Amino acid sequence: MTTISVDAMGGDEGPSAVVEGCALSAAKNSEIAFVLHGDEAVLKNLVAKHPTLSGISKIRHCADVVQMDDKPSQIMRRGQETSMWSCVTALRDGEAQAAVSCGNTGALMAISILRLRKIDGVHRPAIACLWPSRGGEKLNTLLDVGADVRADEESLLQYAMMGAAYYRNAMGAPRPRVGLLNVGTEEHKGRTEIKEAAHLIAEAAEFGRYEFVGFVEGNDLPATHVDVIVTDGFTGNVALKTAEGTAKLVSDVLRDELTGSAVAKLGALFASGSLRRLKKRMDPRRMNGGVFLGLNGTVVKSHGSADATGVSAAIKLAFTLARSGFQDRMAERIASIAEASQKRLAERDPATAAERARGTTGTEAS
Amino acid sequence: MTTISVDAMGGDEGPSAVVEGCALSAAKNSEIAFVLHGDEAVLKNLVAKHPTLSGISKIRHCADVVQMDDKPSQIMRRGQETSMWSCVTALRDGEAQAAVSCGNTGALMAISILRLRKIDGVHRPAIACLWPSRGGEKLNTLLDVGADVRADEESLLQYAMMGAAYYRNAMGAPRPRVGLLNVGTEEHKGRTEIKEAAHLIAEAAEFGRYEFVGFVEGNDLPATHVDVIVTDGFTGNVALKTAEGTAKLVSDVLRDELTGSAVAKLGALFASGSLRRLKKRMDPRRMNGGVFLGLNGTVVKSHGSADATGVSAAIKLAFTLARSGFQDRMAERIASIAEASQKRLAERDPATAAERARGTTGTEAS
Repeated sequence: MTTISVDAMGGDEGPSAVVEGCALSAAKNSEIAFVLHGDEAVLKNLVAKHPTLSGISKIRHCADVVQMDDKPSQIMRRGQETSMWSCVTALRDGEAQAAVSCGNTGALMAISILRLRKIDGVHRPAIACLWPSRGGEKLNTLLDVGADVRADEESLLQYAMMGAAYYRNAMGAPRPRVGLLNVGTEEHKGRTEIKEAAHLIAEAAEFGRYEFVGFVEGNDLPATHVDVIVTDGFTGNVALKTAEGTAKLVSDVLRDELTGSAVAKLGALFASGSLRRLKKRMDPRRMNGGVFLGLNGTVVKSHGSADATGVSAAIKLAFTLARSGFQDRMAERIASIAEASQKRLAERDPATAAERARGTTGTEAS
Repeated sequence: MTTISVDAMGGDEGPSAVVEGCALSAAKNSEIAFVLHGDEAVLKNLVAKHPTLSGISKIRHCADVVQMDDKPSQIMRRGQETSMWSCVTALRDGEAQAAVSCGNTGALMAISILRLRKIDGVHRPAIACLWPSRGGEKLNTLLDVGADVRADEESLLQYAMMGAAYYRNAMGAPRPRVGLLNVGTEEHKGRTEIKEAAHLIAEAAEFGRYEFVGFVEGNDLPATHVDVIVTDGFTGNVALKTAEGTAKLVSDVLRDELTGSAVAKLGALFASGSLRRLKKRMDPRRMNGGVFLGLNGTVVKSHGSADATGVSAAIKLAFTLARSGFQDRMAERIASIAEASQKRLAERDPATAAERARGTTGTEAS
């Protein structure tokens, strides 16, 4: 059995959607178990409604819940009673092999860093999200989508290594193709740190077991010639939300138009199979699950608005990663490249190198 | 009459699409005239095909054309014979009131800075693009979408001022609503320079004749509560291309699905009016035209792949801006805020302030 620690209180849809998501996963997967964190009375009732959950679900009572507008700093000081804190702690204590929460991203990252600690050598953890690809069922990955608002060349190199390790294990792709997001594909384009990162990422390709395809642009995010797209958390977050906003705008306009007249409605009826497949193909629930990379433990952030299907997709991702054992192999590789980075940095910028060696440069949470 | 200087050789579709675009504009607008730059023999032939262009089009022969992969630095040294150079020069020399080109963006910006010079006090010019909005026919504006890969708080303030001036005149909106792109709408989120820019932009709202709506996120780019969205050129370029890629992915999947079976095709037939309206609403040609802001002259960059309809939209934008006389009023305001910026900077960072006063910090072209 693989046990997933689930923050049952975090999402916009409330604990019933989260527990239903667990039940959906349990129905499809006989090797899964849960520790559910939240209001005991509420959760007991919900679990009782799903026979598939009986015997595989422990409930951990928590008096408090992290709110969507809580600041990470508040939660780090006063969040010990929350379901999110309890959820991450169960992972740290080895009661579960991965954690899932639909709650406040900043708070989840802060608690995860505090309780799990960063992997040795990691400057900054990253959040990787899934992205629809032109290649049918294939999905791409973009990171960082918001753990940190800045990334220097060394951080971008670590994102490439971590993103490739994640993609390899989540998607069963032995040698993921890594691209670096830029404003053009020519070598002379872009910011200095991105040009330097391109050299570092190319150099580390053999060791990191990925192929480096060079610079990619925003319109390449769904491309079939790349699997993992690396960028800083500010750009990644804007790209993710821009794509969500654009897809929503197109689908809203389409829906308005298709219900605008009787003839259009008839057309929509005949085309309903096609429209359903379009919806399924672009369904954000299928891509639900932002994975935190660079921590001693696998934490998956489910979208706040996820319904049971979305929660179940995030749980599946957590399960797959927990089973793959990729954390240990990734940690070894990161430690090794971090040593090389530290040497480069010591030559160029001794002050920052010394700070990093002391582990005093933390994450500037977004 | 208002004369538009047109680089007829720049686009992917060749001079015939550009000249046809001019003809479309001339048919709708009796107060427009053109100076067309490019191969004289080719252009004479094309102009002869469009009676609406007779008597209102001068042709300026140019032996050379800027290629899409030419580097800006090459063009600045050896580009004097190109149609793009000639196009911008006609604007500088007062033969035309605005310039339009479908060519290489980097080269067009480099030539424009060299020939027109930046407005006094402008650190870095910006490129503003149009963005579809949820509000029916309304369009939003995003800047910078790629003139410069970095922007500090003072540059972001200038983008807000210039973007508001552009929007007011292009869209006839007396008091545009300005938002600053960030990874969250809470005050504590984002990069330091963005938080500082938010204060500067809020302070200058009265003087700049705009309303500041605070931080907006990627999914707000089509929102109805904002008109002008300000960001650095790296983020803006990624957002623009991400949106283009997403819209194309959705429409390609929709087309595949609607031609997948006989029933679906029948549905598409009944729904064809709706689908046509969807296409029209999201038509990138309607939003064609990246306006260069911060130069002594109005330059509009048309999309390289624009057809005649797209070129005509860019020409209309150039005409509207040339007629509005917004350049002079914008220059006055920028000079005034630049003085205040210079004082702030001198207090905090005398070296950079001195460099800027000497005008030695140029544009780091993307």
